[in-house]
Amino acid sequence: MSDLVHPVLINGQWKNSAGTSTFQASDPQTRSPLEAQYPVSPWGEVKETLQAAHQAANELKEISPSQIAEFLDEYANRIEDSEDDLIAIANQETALPEEPRLRSVELPRTTSQLRSAASAAKKGSWNLPTIDTSLQIRSIYRAIGPVCVFGPNNFPFAFNSIAGGDFAAAIAAGNPVIAKGNTSHPGTTEIFAKAANAAVTSTKMPKGLVQLLYRTSHQDGERLVSHPLLGATGYTGSRQAGLILKSAADRSGKPIYLELSSINPILILPGALKERQDDIIDDLSSSILLGTGQFCTSPGLIILVESPAADTFVSELGLRMGKTPPGVLLGAGVQKSLIEGIRELETAGAQTIIGGLAIDDPNKGFCIENTLLQVNGTSFLMRPEDFQRETFGNSSLVVRARDFEEFKAIIGSLEGNLTGSIYSHSQGIDDLLYNEAESLLRPKVGRLLNDKMPTGVAVSPAMNHGGPFPATGHPGFTAVGIPASLLRFSALQCYDNVRQHRLPLELQDKNPTGHTWRLIDGTWTQADI
Amino acid sequence: MSDLVHPVLINGQWKNSAGTSTFQASDPQTRSPLEAQYPVSPWGEVKETLQAAHQAANELKEISPSQIAEFLDEYANRIEDSEDDLIAIANQETALPEEPRLRSVELPRTTSQLRSAASAAKKGSWNLPTIDTSLQIRSIYRAIGPVCVFGPNNFPFAFNSIAGGDFAAAIAAGNPVIAKGNTSHPGTTEIFAKAANAAVTSTKMPKGLVQLLYRTSHQDGERLVSHPLLGATGYTGSRQAGLILKSAADRSGKPIYLELSSINPILILPGALKERQDDIIDDLSSSILLGTGQFCTSPGLIILVESPAADTFVSELGLRMGKTPPGVLLGAGVQKSLIEGIRELETAGAQTIIGGLAIDDPNKGFCIENTLLQVNGTSFLMRPEDFQRETFGNSSLVVRARDFEEFKAIIGSLEGNLTGSIYSHSQGIDDLLYNEAESLLRPKVGRLLNDKMPTGVAVSPAMNHGGPFPATGHPGFTAVGIPASLLRFSALQCYDNVRQHRLPLELQDKNPTGHTWRLIDGTWTQADI
Repeated sequence: MSDLVHPVLINGQWKNSAGTSTFQASDPQTRSPLEAQYPVSPWGEVKETLQAAHQAANELKEISPSQIAEFLDEYANRIEDSEDDLIAIANQETALPEEPRLRSVELPRTTSQLRSAASAAKKGSWNLPTIDTSLQIRSIYRAIGPVCVFGPNNFPFAFNSIAGGDFAAAIAAGNPVIAKGNTSHPGTTEIFAKAANAAVTSTKMPKGLVQLLYRTSHQDGERLVSHPLLGATGYTGSRQAGLILKSAADRSGKPIYLELSSINPILILPGALKERQDDIIDDLSSSILLGTGQFCTSPGLIILVESPAADTFVSELGLRMGKTPPGVLLGAGVQKSLIEGIRELETAGAQTIIGGLAIDDPNKGFCIENTLLQVNGTSFLMRPEDFQRETFGNSSLVVRARDFEEFKAIIGSLEGNLTGSIYSHSQGIDDLLYNEAESLLRPKVGRLLNDKMPTGVAVSPAMNHGGPFPATGHPGFTAVGIPASLLRFSALQCYDNVRQHRLPLELQDKNPTGHTWRLIDGTWTQADI
Repeated sequence: MSDLVHPVLINGQWKNSAGTSTFQASDPQTRSPLEAQYPVSPWGEVKETLQAAHQAANELKEISPSQIAEFLDEYANRIEDSEDDLIAIANQETALPEEPRLRSVELPRTTSQLRSAASAAKKGSWNLPTIDTSLQIRSIYRAIGPVCVFGPNNFPFAFNSIAGGDFAAAIAAGNPVIAKGNTSHPGTTEIFAKAANAAVTSTKMPKGLVQLLYRTSHQDGERLVSHPLLGATGYTGSRQAGLILKSAADRSGKPIYLELSSINPILILPGALKERQDDIIDDLSSSILLGTGQFCTSPGLIILVESPAADTFVSELGLRMGKTPPGVLLGAGVQKSLIEGIRELETAGAQTIIGGLAIDDPNKGFCIENTLLQVNGTSFLMRPEDFQRETFGNSSLVVRARDFEEFKAIIGSLEGNLTGSIYSHSQGIDDLLYNEAESLLRPKVGRLLNDKMPTGVAVSPAMNHGGPFPATGHPGFTAVGIPASLLRFSALQCYDNVRQHRLPLELQDKNPTGHTWRLIDGTWTQADI
């Protein structure tokens, strides 16, 4: 392969790929392909990364959590050193604005996640050390083995396969990562990989701790997630590709954590509409259009009960969205899929209030008009699956229920989602309706919000960025929030009658840090035994 | 269907099944079918249980954990009231001895599990309430919805689908249970179901809290575990049937927790053999033959390094096993499969040291001779999968490694197991070998033991009765040990900016019991906020 093709990172070395095909990313603002060529790695190369990761996993057993934390901190520092380069290329590859998005929001979030993960690794409480002193049985969650991370297109930093939340969680839990870069921002990913590899070297970590492949065949992706040497997979992306990987991983018994799709229903109760319609329109239009609607938690479905106030609300919301200039989408694929989604909603019976068309001005990049559609509840309930098609981008669907009974039936027909929001009157006028709506919505969403849009996903220990299938693959895990997100990349390991000096430090009588939380004989404590 | 066919328990009512086919259990001691006929339920009946369970799940939302605990305690009391009946019929259906097994060990364990689960439900710490006071984000693990439990043949009480560990965990986590009884002990299961239903009535629980079907078609089993109204499944049984259910559940994104098969390797290091050969022979022969070897944690593979001491050990172990009278197996199917397994091991190249044949004396019930086989390490490594075939029953395979390198290669070739034991010299002579062996064995097993047989599975908060695939379906969960086993039957639910009075009690500022453990701003505490 030509020297012009960018190399892949395997076992600490940047190597020319043995692959024979390549791909290029595009600049969504100019719709032109970017010059840099990246390789499609053949199976032999994937296997090489697996073997190096397996070796690294073995070496990691001898490395302390605080050394792992040093690596994560050092990597965060190096990312800050490369800040300008990262922002420039991410802006070019994704069209996400430099300010405030890339520089003031997403990059600081990324380094902060890495540092929080470092701190969680050092503290050691994430792994729930549990000790039964009378029976001499002790257990703990520990590293599961090499983790493959598939990053999404919409967060080139904070969910990047080699720098984002899954990466940070997998490393902090003690695992090597094989990053499968998102093909829409390979240049961004490459800069991260250089910083990561430099941090690997300077903190003397195993060479195979962090590796990067840009692309493989779909078949090789399936082989990768189901390979005996792999521990687990973290995937964020389209439902279709995710389900194919899930099926392969499931067959081989390899854990795979997926974040697939979500339309994040917003329920607006009558009292709230009456009390603060303008505020809700502000919140909602901003949230729908944030990042050109390309958030996993973007509100794609707004449900309300028919009324004159609802009429006004919907038309005002449309006007507001129409006045906002549409942002540039992440790429041609996103634009195409979004337009297809809108056409499918229309075919199913939705009516376009505003927007709905692609903007065919090459100077404007990949854009569509800000789009708001509506459908009545009766039509929705005839084809609930069709109307829950995710339109990833700056588009949302309003469902107008005839009455509260229909409103409840609509909630009852919802699929699993990451989030669900309920807006209600601040003085309790809606509380009876709230109770009924909440009881139907609660089991369908990972995070339930009151009077708040779901697009902010705080990195809090109490966060759940997860939810029932098909939003994710398992309702018991979160992809955001430290330390809980680390548990995905670990296995429960029990020690029965094992001699004291052979136990992991966290399970020995003495508290390894003096402040690690351990559940000893039913009591959470930071004390020694 | 004839009135002679025993009824099924649906939504609190004992009803004649609409099914047209029936089955009978057998007495393993006489090899004769028992008189009682039990129905194979058609899909309509399965659907009816699903709907009743769904209704019960909704009703449970309004029922406090302490009421659930009352039910569990009351059920445990009623089981004790039925003790003699349970023991008589379980003995008849399984041939497991009344004493000590059924009366002094398994029944007390069963009621104790139910009471521990009650206590965990009441205390409320199992669900890891996590609160971020500054961001007003709070999360907790909560009921996942109706749980279907498939119980195994080998523990008619402690793992019974309607009384065992999965049942207790699912109920304590706030879910209704649809029990799919094991077809080898329907009469035992029926008595439990009567006690459970009486406890449902007397503690005023939802009618559909506990339901029982004895059998369905395989196809309907797949529909059940993947049904939209189901929350999750707990399955303990054969690998083959389990993997079919897993595939159906995985496709629909429904969590399924499986305990499939395990051969529980025992590694004996040279120093241990030298130091206490006789003790190890005692332990090992008892453990292999406990319950006629029909334990999920029965030691099916013994690995040691060739030496004159190893020669003596193996022949002494064989002699000891040969002197012990063989127990009666659970049924014709177990006997057939065990004999087939032994033949397959022999075909693969194993040599029978003692036993190996079925005992064809109708007066002795379903028996085979206590069986010990051996194979050299080189042969094992040529066909490691064939030699890891589980022989469920009173049979075990010794692998004799040429040297320590081969010993390690054998460990490296092992599949996932529930347990792995290492016997080593008490004064540290084996410690270097231990370290190498442990590093290879640890990632392959859920519970690692020192100098101890794995057949005792204590109900401890620190227990892990789980392990990597194919021992189970996911290495992060345990089927034994309260409260951890409850987490399998829950979903992570987050509340973001939700008003105080709308939060679950466990997440409100005031500690709901005064002693529930909650992680508040990074600190585990029993205090209020």
